[in-house]
Amino acid sequence: MTEEEQIKADEQYMRRALAEAGLAMAAGEIPVGAVVVCRGRIVSRAHNLTETLCDVTAHAEMQAITAAANTLGGKYLTDCTLYVTVEPCAMCAGAIGWAQVSRVVYGASDEKRGYTLLAPRALHPKCSVTGGVLAEECARLMKEFFAARR
Amino acid sequence: MTEEEQIKADEQYMRRALAEAGLAMAAGEIPVGAVVVCRGRIVSRAHNLTETLCDVTAHAEMQAITAAANTLGGKYLTDCTLYVTVEPCAMCAGAIGWAQVSRVVYGASDEKRGYTLLAPRALHPKCSVTGGVLAEECARLMKEFFAARR
Repeated sequence: MTEEEQIKADEQYMRRALAEAGLAMAAGEIPVGAVVVCRGRIVSRAHNLTETLCDVTAHAEMQAITAAANTLGGKYLTDCTLYVTVEPCAMCAGAIGWAQVSRVVYGASDEKRGYTLLAPRALHPKCSVTGGVLAEECARLMKEFFAARR
Repeated sequence: MTEEEQIKADEQYMRRALAEAGLAMAAGEIPVGAVVVCRGRIVSRAHNLTETLCDVTAHAEMQAITAAANTLGGKYLTDCTLYVTVEPCAMCAGAIGWAQVSRVVYGASDEKRGYTLLAPRALHPKCSVTGGVLAEECARLMKEFFAARR
């Protein structure tokens, strides 16, 4: 895949993650969505459900990792890319590390709770990370959600 | 509660966490157990199930947090103490932080994957932490597990 094709593919998958974030928004949840892609195929998609499930661990990434392992029949996601609309937190970065996800692509940065601040070494050392994909659209959903709550 | 009573109570609850770790061991899982205590009452107990569930997120602490929220009917565990036989990893520390657990008591340290190394700022700033409770017993289970696998 050329670099240009990779950028195009990343944006395409991030749009799927954004669609998941939209579902979270519609359900009154903080709008974060995620998809896991394995060799060109979406193997899981999920959105934040912490309120619905009354469970702080129900972040989009956590559910996407659990579901991807279920689809693939193994708990390691070594050939997978996780797309998520907002930078993972320490918890999710830890899970991404345990799952040995090979690549993480995120949209908006999270300057307060992002893993780069709170858990910079939680990801697997071999994991490659791309941030800022469709960052404005991803951040806009978050801003809209919190503006509506004020 | 006097300091002496607190130490006695901590050891008593850690023995319950150790019993959970024993169940994990018996199931061929890395032997880690956890209990959540709210105002003198055990509101959840869990042990590591990553192999059984084929899910890297199924650490004892994660399940104990989810179950405690379910028991208490709210996702914040602000009046709770989480007892766990081994120092939490970055993922679990992140979850403990999100759940606003007020106190964490752990047994053995985890020098490779513990949160103090990988995610020192993941816990809630107000969370108080006590390490080293029944540390030798907690560590012995882990050593036995890994020795049997070699």
